[in-house]
Amino acid sequence: MSATEAERLARAALSCAGEPGSIPLTDEVAAKGGVRAYDDLLGGRSPLSDDLAARVERLDAGAELARAAEQGIRFVVPGDEEWPTAVEDLTFADALQERGGIPVGLWVRGPRRLDEMTEHAVAVVGSRAATSYGCQLAGDLGAKVAAAGHSVVSGAAFGVDYYAHRGALTVAGPTLAVLAGGVDRAYPEKHAQLLEGLAREGLVVSEAPLGASSMRVRFLARNRLIAALSRGTVVVEAAVRSGALNTANWTVGLGRTLMGVPGPVNSATSAGVHQLIRSRGALLVTRPEEVLEAVAPMGTFLLTEPRAPAHPRDLLGIIERQVLDALPIAQAAVTESVARTAGLRPQRTRQALDQLLGAGLVQYVDGAWRAVRDGERGTG
Amino acid sequence: MSATEAERLARAALSCAGEPGSIPLTDEVAAKGGVRAYDDLLGGRSPLSDDLAARVERLDAGAELARAAEQGIRFVVPGDEEWPTAVEDLTFADALQERGGIPVGLWVRGPRRLDEMTEHAVAVVGSRAATSYGCQLAGDLGAKVAAAGHSVVSGAAFGVDYYAHRGALTVAGPTLAVLAGGVDRAYPEKHAQLLEGLAREGLVVSEAPLGASSMRVRFLARNRLIAALSRGTVVVEAAVRSGALNTANWTVGLGRTLMGVPGPVNSATSAGVHQLIRSRGALLVTRPEEVLEAVAPMGTFLLTEPRAPAHPRDLLGIIERQVLDALPIAQAAVTESVARTAGLRPQRTRQALDQLLGAGLVQYVDGAWRAVRDGERGTG
Repeated sequence: MSATEAERLARAALSCAGEPGSIPLTDEVAAKGGVRAYDDLLGGRSPLSDDLAARVERLDAGAELARAAEQGIRFVVPGDEEWPTAVEDLTFADALQERGGIPVGLWVRGPRRLDEMTEHAVAVVGSRAATSYGCQLAGDLGAKVAAAGHSVVSGAAFGVDYYAHRGALTVAGPTLAVLAGGVDRAYPEKHAQLLEGLAREGLVVSEAPLGASSMRVRFLARNRLIAALSRGTVVVEAAVRSGALNTANWTVGLGRTLMGVPGPVNSATSAGVHQLIRSRGALLVTRPEEVLEAVAPMGTFLLTEPRAPAHPRDLLGIIERQVLDALPIAQAAVTESVARTAGLRPQRTRQALDQLLGAGLVQYVDGAWRAVRDGERGTG
Repeated sequence: MSATEAERLARAALSCAGEPGSIPLTDEVAAKGGVRAYDDLLGGRSPLSDDLAARVERLDAGAELARAAEQGIRFVVPGDEEWPTAVEDLTFADALQERGGIPVGLWVRGPRRLDEMTEHAVAVVGSRAATSYGCQLAGDLGAKVAAAGHSVVSGAAFGVDYYAHRGALTVAGPTLAVLAGGVDRAYPEKHAQLLEGLAREGLVVSEAPLGASSMRVRFLARNRLIAALSRGTVVVEAAVRSGALNTANWTVGLGRTLMGVPGPVNSATSAGVHQLIRSRGALLVTRPEEVLEAVAPMGTFLLTEPRAPAHPRDLLGIIERQVLDALPIAQAAVTESVARTAGLRPQRTRQALDQLLGAGLVQYVDGAWRAVRDGERGTG
């Protein structure tokens, strides 16, 4: 199945002439569809600006699509099999900083199918000025999430984004970059090679047309797509004023799962994440498995909680453990004293002590019992 | 006001003969009061053990109290002005590891009043094997909490406990140790000097009678008092099998505020704290002020959220900001292009650009506008 060519052309024209995430535009197209929004615009029956109408009129959308196709870029619109219906949840999310709504269409570069790539995707975002701690965690998270078959969605920026994509590529796993500018432009320039890799093995996606450059307002529009194309967003490191927090806001607004990786409290690049956990209800995550559990459909991913190494105590019966817990920590004690603390008969206590002696957990010296110490056992 | 001498003697006898936090004992005394529980025990009308009765019969409670008084130790019971009524909340908390209930009485050493000391107290607990990160945070937290007039309650153990008490003592602030053994015994021995300091300037408290030594089961009973004597508990560092988690469980069971300080996810001594935040509803705290806010009565402590340093952007009007956000990040753009992205008329855009030029936020070169870069501005 695929959208009609008329619809694709109309939406391409609106996408090329309009601004990504412009609310009047996304509202109009969501209400009327591409063809009618286009016709009404040119016929003077549109709430959209005359300026936009003039630009649309000058555009040759067919030529734009052909130019894109030459570069291996397609324009995906509703009705296409590949259209990621998840972005339609944006209808229910409030606008943020005057951007919002369902994109008119998505410019896509790369061999994978956008709908399949985003079915169980996880966004991994964070500071461009990430520390080595954040970069390492982002890489590890990208690798583990992708290895489990979930796409890693990010923004191809410096820092966390870069390492998240790289982690996924390292394990030949699915990963997808959403750009603020055109998918034919490498931004940031230093990531030209990364973006080539993503276009070859994953996907590069943008709401902005070919040739569009990156400005702050387009990053804000872009962040809503990162959130909308993913089941959940993990913020790895973020200062208190970080663009990643904008993505976090979209995640919450969309009712998706927001997650944050904590760090040292004296690290400025963790302060934004800590705020998200404290006051935005972000789930604290420490390992890729916890992320996978949070985004998996209920009950399909079973998480094993980390445990301390097994301790001989764990193998004891309840009476033996009770007796062991009743031994003084710093001194030795006679059987009667241990029995009293444990609340057991002396005879039964003595039996348990003999067993503990055999297990090497107590010593018997000069008629008194002493617990064998270890690094962590016992106190509080 | 003070308890009757008969009640104090009866409870002293039961405290000396019994085991801290023994549920049959705390239940019986809570139901009948000290005098009747004592009389019933000696009269063979008690659900408590014959063994306990025999020990109580042999005891001279008056002599025990006199011996304590000689060492500057008092036995505080319900009815005394100094009795901390907060511990009575233990009636409503489920038993943990067969310990629970309101203590029969508390052995107290030090110049301060126990009820006043615990009115707005904060427990600071954590790993004995704390890292330098945890020790530093515990010391800072102890100092700031005590300087704000809240007592710091802890267990005088190595690691977090030690630094929390020390922090409070450094600012001559109120701090209180709850011990598992008798208040006349230095446990751990290496903290004899710390305990002397606490007894001189704060308080040392225990449910266990003089001379009682420290065993694991008494630490479990002690931890419930740390939680009960405080408005909230902060866990600074804790491995996944740490005694501090037992205190955390008591805190939750008592309906008190549980807080946790996050750390690096690869630090074993933060793993237990992260679990508390993830799955026990502990509030993530990063600064002493956040702890104070959490334990203060609603609205009495106003927290200022950390903010990034002020940025010239913050001072701009809405139109100027819109124009600035519409400038390409990597290149220059002509006025008409900026106007289109911003969705503004070219004339108004030009006015705003001139203002931004004056503020040093944009440059005008070869007929095109370029944003002045800084370290963190703009992207996402």
